[in-house]
Amino acid sequence: MPNTERLEGLERAERLDRVERGPMMTGGTPLRSLDEDELLARILPGFPVSDDLVVAPGDDAAVLRTTGRVIATTDTVVLGRDWLDAWSSGADIGHKVVAQNLADVAAMGGRPTGVLVTLVADPELSLEWVLDHVRGLSEACLEAGVAVLGGDLSSAPAGVVMVSVTALGRLDGEPVLRSGARPGDVLAVHGTLGLADAGLRLLRADAVERLPVAVERQRRPQPPLAAGPEAAAAGATAMLDLSDGLLRDGGRLAHASHVVVDLDPGALAGDVDALTGALGAEVALDCVLAGGEEHSLLATFPAGSVTDGWRVIGSVRAPAEGEADGIVVAGRAVAHTGWDHFRNG
Amino acid sequence: MPNTERLEGLERAERLDRVERGPMMTGGTPLRSLDEDELLARILPGFPVSDDLVVAPGDDAAVLRTTGRVIATTDTVVLGRDWLDAWSSGADIGHKVVAQNLADVAAMGGRPTGVLVTLVADPELSLEWVLDHVRGLSEACLEAGVAVLGGDLSSAPAGVVMVSVTALGRLDGEPVLRSGARPGDVLAVHGTLGLADAGLRLLRADAVERLPVAVERQRRPQPPLAAGPEAAAAGATAMLDLSDGLLRDGGRLAHASHVVVDLDPGALAGDVDALTGALGAEVALDCVLAGGEEHSLLATFPAGSVTDGWRVIGSVRAPAEGEADGIVVAGRAVAHTGWDHFRNG
Repeated sequence: MPNTERLEGLERAERLDRVERGPMMTGGTPLRSLDEDELLARILPGFPVSDDLVVAPGDDAAVLRTTGRVIATTDTVVLGRDWLDAWSSGADIGHKVVAQNLADVAAMGGRPTGVLVTLVADPELSLEWVLDHVRGLSEACLEAGVAVLGGDLSSAPAGVVMVSVTALGRLDGEPVLRSGARPGDVLAVHGTLGLADAGLRLLRADAVERLPVAVERQRRPQPPLAAGPEAAAAGATAMLDLSDGLLRDGGRLAHASHVVVDLDPGALAGDVDALTGALGAEVALDCVLAGGEEHSLLATFPAGSVTDGWRVIGSVRAPAEGEADGIVVAGRAVAHTGWDHFRNG
Repeated sequence: MPNTERLEGLERAERLDRVERGPMMTGGTPLRSLDEDELLARILPGFPVSDDLVVAPGDDAAVLRTTGRVIATTDTVVLGRDWLDAWSSGADIGHKVVAQNLADVAAMGGRPTGVLVTLVADPELSLEWVLDHVRGLSEACLEAGVAVLGGDLSSAPAGVVMVSVTALGRLDGEPVLRSGARPGDVLAVHGTLGLADAGLRLLRADAVERLPVAVERQRRPQPPLAAGPEAAAAGATAMLDLSDGLLRDGGRLAHASHVVVDLDPGALAGDVDALTGALGAEVALDCVLAGGEEHSLLATFPAGSVTDGWRVIGSVRAPAEGEADGIVVAGRAVAHTGWDHFRNG
């Protein structure tokens, strides 16, 4: 199972990181050599603002102009659990934690507007890592037209670095839930499948040259943010972002909607082929079906309503008598698993 | 300096906690024995909802009905840095992290509407602690009419427990900034002064019986949430919540507004007297002037506009020729300091 392998790789390296305090904690200027005001003075000017930001960071709270409904979501990454110093730069992590939060806003049919960012770190963490991180985070926000609304800084025990982001968004129409898929709908995806997991496997195998684009996607996911509101406007009945793999997330959509989602393997052949040269056919299929952190969008549409940029990869039907809701591949049940923080971690 | 003493007490115990994994990590059911879905099934039903919650936790993101401007703020607490297992229960910490976030919303003149909560924890942390924490957190939200909009769970290295909260609020009028105080205004406070710091000192001295109300305030701050919008409606010119002490926070308000804030020691005599029996006059004065974590509200009003529940404790004037902006006591400059995460931590 890919997620178990991932875990083992991370767990092993995480222990090393904790004991050895990798390059992000040994080179450059440690955070403890600055006071909080000095640190903020280095960080805050890099944060993007927006026209909707009525009160920018620096007061008790920020104030953001918005429409009548606000979308809110939060996602956290932890050194050694979600990334390794050796594999991702500070900028990569900034980009990634923003992207995965914004993907959740898009998956409701919304447009992201702002983020709040919290860094909890070993005071030995280098200022250079933090500034690089802020750069990546700000770039990802700028690309999406998102402002940084605020944040918090706190120190943590030796070896701990954690970044928590909360994203806000605006919703102009109705939210697209996971639970709205109906029998007769088609299942469609916007974006790649399996690339980020393939990149993780290549990093583990020290073979990044076999498919650099996959490694880049693992480091910097590219959620198709505009596709979320476009799908909502086109009448998507259910939607989510692929964070834990097609089988697991598709299963969640099926379960929430009380339907059976049937994946068409033929429609996934191109995704598998794209990874086969680097990883072999079996692993490539695993990546496409179960690979996490892709952050493409998965949605169901009434047949005939699928809009530009989405490709149909399956169908939706009612469960047969006695059949459970869930995901199947070409009509056949599959085992699926995924990342679980406390049990695996 | 109170904050240095606080730090030393916490640092010492924090090291013990990390090595020994206190009761929150040794008794009961460890989190690692549940999978994430089982854990969420135990947590989510306890979270309060509200009529404005259009999409509750469980989808990619929550959706909250709001007015045209949303207030957002975030604040994080870390075991060993911000609390000790021996001194605060899970429920206390839940209450406290919510209260300190909601205080920031109130300090803008807003009404809190929702929070997002992230728990990053050692998988040895006990489920019982987490459920107690959720109880305290939910009670604090319910009292304030606030919904839990969502959250995240992640595992962390041994001994680490961290809770990060983002609070949202609605703003019906104009935000009250730190920077609006004008010469001729009066300075007023709503709520107690020094009680939370007194409680911390009594916990450190193992003398909680000397003033239980102070210890209770340290464990569970009581920000006067309604007073924020009331002050805004009454014409408050500047406002913030007292998280780092009267001198430091009052100094911030003065600096942001380019004014001199002059505290009237006579107006603080009652606050000092209330703590003198338990701590002696000198320490009591220290608590009142520099004690953190009180989360009372500090504001400036045009003379004659001070509204119910606020008491005047000083005045605002323009800096004299060559004088810096800042805070003074009875016209005389004072040294002030406070908590600094990376340098002290």
